[in-house]
Amino acid sequence: MRTAVLSEGQIVVRDVPEPEPGFGEVLVQVQACGICGSDLHFVKHGARMLELGEQMRGMPNLGAEPPKIDLSRDVFMGHEFSAEVLEADKDTQTFAPGTIVTSVPILMSMSGIEPIVYSNTTLGGYAERMLLSAPLLLEVPNGLDPRHAALTEPMAVGLHAVNKAHITQGDGALVLGCGPVGIAVIAALKLQGVESIVAADFSPGRRALAARMGATEVVDPAVEGSFDAWYRVGQGNLVVFEAIGVPGIIDGALRDAPAGARIVVVGVCMEPDSITPFFGISKELNVQFCFGYDPMEFADTLQSIAEGAIDVSPLITGEVDLDGVAGAFDELSDPERHCKILVTP
Amino acid sequence: MRTAVLSEGQIVVRDVPEPEPGFGEVLVQVQACGICGSDLHFVKHGARMLELGEQMRGMPNLGAEPPKIDLSRDVFMGHEFSAEVLEADKDTQTFAPGTIVTSVPILMSMSGIEPIVYSNTTLGGYAERMLLSAPLLLEVPNGLDPRHAALTEPMAVGLHAVNKAHITQGDGALVLGCGPVGIAVIAALKLQGVESIVAADFSPGRRALAARMGATEVVDPAVEGSFDAWYRVGQGNLVVFEAIGVPGIIDGALRDAPAGARIVVVGVCMEPDSITPFFGISKELNVQFCFGYDPMEFADTLQSIAEGAIDVSPLITGEVDLDGVAGAFDELSDPERHCKILVTP
Repeated sequence: MRTAVLSEGQIVVRDVPEPEPGFGEVLVQVQACGICGSDLHFVKHGARMLELGEQMRGMPNLGAEPPKIDLSRDVFMGHEFSAEVLEADKDTQTFAPGTIVTSVPILMSMSGIEPIVYSNTTLGGYAERMLLSAPLLLEVPNGLDPRHAALTEPMAVGLHAVNKAHITQGDGALVLGCGPVGIAVIAALKLQGVESIVAADFSPGRRALAARMGATEVVDPAVEGSFDAWYRVGQGNLVVFEAIGVPGIIDGALRDAPAGARIVVVGVCMEPDSITPFFGISKELNVQFCFGYDPMEFADTLQSIAEGAIDVSPLITGEVDLDGVAGAFDELSDPERHCKILVTP
Repeated sequence: MRTAVLSEGQIVVRDVPEPEPGFGEVLVQVQACGICGSDLHFVKHGARMLELGEQMRGMPNLGAEPPKIDLSRDVFMGHEFSAEVLEADKDTQTFAPGTIVTSVPILMSMSGIEPIVYSNTTLGGYAERMLLSAPLLLEVPNGLDPRHAALTEPMAVGLHAVNKAHITQGDGALVLGCGPVGIAVIAALKLQGVESIVAADFSPGRRALAARMGATEVVDPAVEGSFDAWYRVGQGNLVVFEAIGVPGIIDGALRDAPAGARIVVVGVCMEPDSITPFFGISKELNVQFCFGYDPMEFADTLQSIAEGAIDVSPLITGEVDLDGVAGAFDELSDPERHCKILVTP
């Protein structure tokens, strides 16, 4: 069986043994798997990411322990997937062969819980076949295109960020960055009925996508400051969504946000960053860091996509097979051309 | 009339004309005025503080405009005061001469609202007499010692920080730093019935004061990490109060706090600071910056002190007249010896 893996900084295709389902596990044929920005980042900065995780290992109340990964060995990736059941789990047989499913990217086995994100041992969605956990499977409803169902995971990130913002009547939003994360935030804001959604990105293509997904105003920061645009047209109490994830963005938001604003950090900046606490202090700003989603948010998002409340089709800008994964990783560096490339093994 | 002023980086005593009350203004004799850590900071880093304020001037929804101050001229200071009414305002005459009062440090005049914090024109509490705004005056009740009433302002900062934390049943607190701000936070936490209050400071004197004011455990960070102490004895969902205000504290809290913790930044760090967003992201931490208090919190605090619910007497570690202000600024650099020095002109 074939799978694309990360090997010494490069994406290559390997032949690996067929996965054998264990207790509670379901063998599935991958239908589609989105390439996530975090995968691109892991290829370039995996060592740093793992090092940051190690700094937190063993801490009480950590939530989840950071994964142990050996970068000198092959790393399986791909956590935004939909799949067809090939072999139901022997015990419950809940999902018959042929059922199209998706799942939060977690594999629960007798030896513990492992995220299906980066792993030396657990296959991800950049593979022909993989194992999923029966208790976590969600059937893709309404005959939804499996390629669209694969967008459940990234769109759930947006819903979670918006939930973390505790949006109430009268709030408005400024979304900094219209990559897949920013777009997911915009879709979730629209779904929650937020009336004023200003979205900023340097790329015309991304701005057009933001407008299509629900932004009520788009701004090119090369022409007008993102916050200037908010002050010009924004309505309501401002919630800023930082969906860029590079150093300097949080400090800029602290400097430019109005008094009492909330800043939701959903972009994943892996580097040290500099802030000016005085900006936050003098305006009593709130910064909510957020990450991932919970299983309910994942299921809600699948439902929203399947019901047509969120149309994810404009996000899909490319499709490759396993041999095309390496090239797709390169192409995704062009924000004008791509939002989400699906791997369809 | 005499007043201590900041003049070219030094505290000196000046003779100045008697203040003349205008419309809505009350002439008062200062009874006591606490020296605030922010005053010490302003003496050393005033230019930087003003520069940071200038970066935000003119922004929409700023809350309050930063004050315009010329550091080459005398600067009046002193914002933690109690006073005796000498001359009631001509219009309302609400407070008869002899009444002991305090007020939020704001002067409302026909020309606008000016904070009584740092000013080239508006006298502060390091003076024999000053002007206050009649609508903002609060009578000091229960025959409370005016020296204790002067502690209303710094203690209100603690109440505000705790209110901003939205403490609920089952929350616990870790207070980093037991200077006047940390002590005020501890007193407010105790008053709100928080059962687990861990307080950290390098100074044995400050730790003893923290315990007296309500900390249920005190820790010397030279012996045990502040968060280690929390994990050892703390109970409940953690709210961290950063009451130190120097670079590095926020990042340490992000690194060491448990998943889902809230970090309330009440220490005023005036310098750029470095953070590791990944720590906050991976644990979905919340950072609430806060500053000051509102008039209701100020009034509530005065009431709590007057009713004996907060005993501020242990905080007062020194008393000087106007000629002693310069020396008191120097002495306050020793955390072991002093918490709050009152100026009693």
